[in-house]
Amino acid sequence: MMHKIAVIGLGKAGLPIAGVIADSGFEVIGIDIDEKKCNQINSGKNPIPDEKSLDELIKKHGGKSLIAASKYEYAKDCNFFIIIVPLFIDENHDPDFSIMENAFRNVGKILKKGDCVVLETTVPPQTTETIVRGWLEEESELKFGEFYLAYSPERIMTGYSISRLKEFPKVIGGVDEISGKMAFEIYRKFIPNIHLVSTARVAEFIKVIEGCYRDANIALANELFKIADEINVDFYEAREYANHQYCNIHLPSTGVGGHCIPYYPWFLIKEMEKIGKYDHCNLLRTSREINDQMKDYWAEEIILKCLQVDKSMKEIKICINGITYRKGVKELINSINLALVKLLIKKGLNVYVYDELFAREEIVEMGLKFIDPEDADIVFDSFDLVIK
Amino acid sequence: MMHKIAVIGLGKAGLPIAGVIADSGFEVIGIDIDEKKCNQINSGKNPIPDEKSLDELIKKHGGKSLIAASKYEYAKDCNFFIIIVPLFIDENHDPDFSIMENAFRNVGKILKKGDCVVLETTVPPQTTETIVRGWLEEESELKFGEFYLAYSPERIMTGYSISRLKEFPKVIGGVDEISGKMAFEIYRKFIPNIHLVSTARVAEFIKVIEGCYRDANIALANELFKIADEINVDFYEAREYANHQYCNIHLPSTGVGGHCIPYYPWFLIKEMEKIGKYDHCNLLRTSREINDQMKDYWAEEIILKCLQVDKSMKEIKICINGITYRKGVKELINSINLALVKLLIKKGLNVYVYDELFAREEIVEMGLKFIDPEDADIVFDSFDLVIK
Repeated sequence: MMHKIAVIGLGKAGLPIAGVIADSGFEVIGIDIDEKKCNQINSGKNPIPDEKSLDELIKKHGGKSLIAASKYEYAKDCNFFIIIVPLFIDENHDPDFSIMENAFRNVGKILKKGDCVVLETTVPPQTTETIVRGWLEEESELKFGEFYLAYSPERIMTGYSISRLKEFPKVIGGVDEISGKMAFEIYRKFIPNIHLVSTARVAEFIKVIEGCYRDANIALANELFKIADEINVDFYEAREYANHQYCNIHLPSTGVGGHCIPYYPWFLIKEMEKIGKYDHCNLLRTSREINDQMKDYWAEEIILKCLQVDKSMKEIKICINGITYRKGVKELINSINLALVKLLIKKGLNVYVYDELFAREEIVEMGLKFIDPEDADIVFDSFDLVIK
Repeated sequence: MMHKIAVIGLGKAGLPIAGVIADSGFEVIGIDIDEKKCNQINSGKNPIPDEKSLDELIKKHGGKSLIAASKYEYAKDCNFFIIIVPLFIDENHDPDFSIMENAFRNVGKILKKGDCVVLETTVPPQTTETIVRGWLEEESELKFGEFYLAYSPERIMTGYSISRLKEFPKVIGGVDEISGKMAFEIYRKFIPNIHLVSTARVAEFIKVIEGCYRDANIALANELFKIADEINVDFYEAREYANHQYCNIHLPSTGVGGHCIPYYPWFLIKEMEKIGKYDHCNLLRTSREINDQMKDYWAEEIILKCLQVDKSMKEIKICINGITYRKGVKELINSINLALVKLLIKKGLNVYVYDELFAREEIVEMGLKFIDPEDADIVFDSFDLVIK
């Protein structure tokens, strides 16, 4: 049987995989609520400018073997569904499943006996086998077993989406054994480096602990950076020689932003707290705290620098150079650099902003003041961590 | 000028470097308080059975270009001193410098104008430039500048001492620039992969943060292992697929023992606490706590297993299989496995011990009960973390 594949969510993670699947000879229906984006794709235009490598795939397949649509009924003939929509966490660090629930309930409405559904969004372990299964059963009026359900975490990195899909190891696991095998057999047709693991839960856990590793090691780097500064040691010199095949000390930063790493540790922390295992997540919680508090550390450093300027506080022009959550990526989601700007403004300082990825007008539209770094008294380069 | 080199401390770290220096064509005087060990070395016998690779070097140079002696006066003609003696931490986690102070004061007594001294023992950053310098100045009645002082951390790994010295990158830094350059020029004659860093302090910091990296990452692995167990995920399966070029989740354990990793984070924690920067060492402290508490975690797991045995508590024979601090190394210093044995005994359990590196008599001599694992009701394999 030839599979007709639906990809639900055509964002930075979904569109690349939709393009790769189409390029592997499948018919793909992409579903996204953004009609304008769907029209772009169908006319062969890549709507994600950060992903240059997508241009060619969308040009080749958009509107042909990859058809984008904003209504789920366009996917009703599909028998393989990949869901890759955003998941946010709320102010209590609990996951907000509303977007995902909506996607699954809509898929449930068109789900047929024998269809297979794969979730790619990073979620707390056990999500696929519990609430996702429940949404699908409720809406489809099928029992799990009549449809198949698996989990395969996306491993996207903005700007490298296609090469990551083609080269980077990817795992997939089923809610039951047959679901895992079935999903694996389809995935291997478009993902060369795919590995079947024992369960969906293991696959969910794998993705989350990767993020935890990153968060904890960035926190370690931030803590060691502060200690080095305190005892007048050049952290970067020490790091260069400390690192070798058995040691991989990360780079310090203003914190950890974006839509991945700052969320994932909470998936485990919240789960452990829920069952009263508060002592099972001390390192994850401490790492989150350290990374989130780095903006306070840098605010203090900037304020100390202000004291060296022979002007009144209101006259000192402070420039935060770089406000995106990561260097070279024009995204502000959970940007600690932007949080630092707001923190300094709240403290009553005269803060301006510069970012090579944003025009003056874009910065002004955000309600911030633009400045050329050369016109500022103090410039904090938020990626190089230098205050000049 | 040809250098005559003294190596103070002929233990697991000192003797290999003394052997390597002798093998590079230098005359070496090795000083160690253990006279029996000195006699062995002088008759060409390797006193460290764990270091097979040393046999040949000691046979070739012992008693010839490498002369071991228990009195410092034998080293009075040396002009280059390498100190590599143990440093312990006391019950408050403060370093106990007594052995090191004694070594430096004795070197100070024979120190001459123009001599160079290098410390290799891992120490809290700033030790070389402050207290070590002070001891030497006091005893030698020379001013720093009349003698030279540098720091180069040993990077020994038991069982691999010679290959580590020959291949592994090593750093050296001076208390002043000229000390660093002078010590570096000598070291490069017997250590091929030596790098000069800007100061002794940076070199001290480098060694300590390597240990901190290990401790924090083992703590992370232990925490993730406990979480995985709680949600019925096979940690090892998850780890296998989570690890790739950007992710290096370590192995879980019963804790961290030995004379290195459990000490080094305290060097930084204590220093930060001393200056009131309690928030600068949260991750290091949390990591220490997690690793030290793993024995309690395993004790509980073992006790839960006891409940499944249909015998009274006193009748259940528990075997801890593996009591050394690391697999394959016959050393008990800070062994968490041994601490686990004592913890279970304290809880009133009937605990026996087996270790492939120790004979029955050796175990009995420690005041512990020996058992063949086959005769026990419950066997905890402390390296594979399996309770059978």
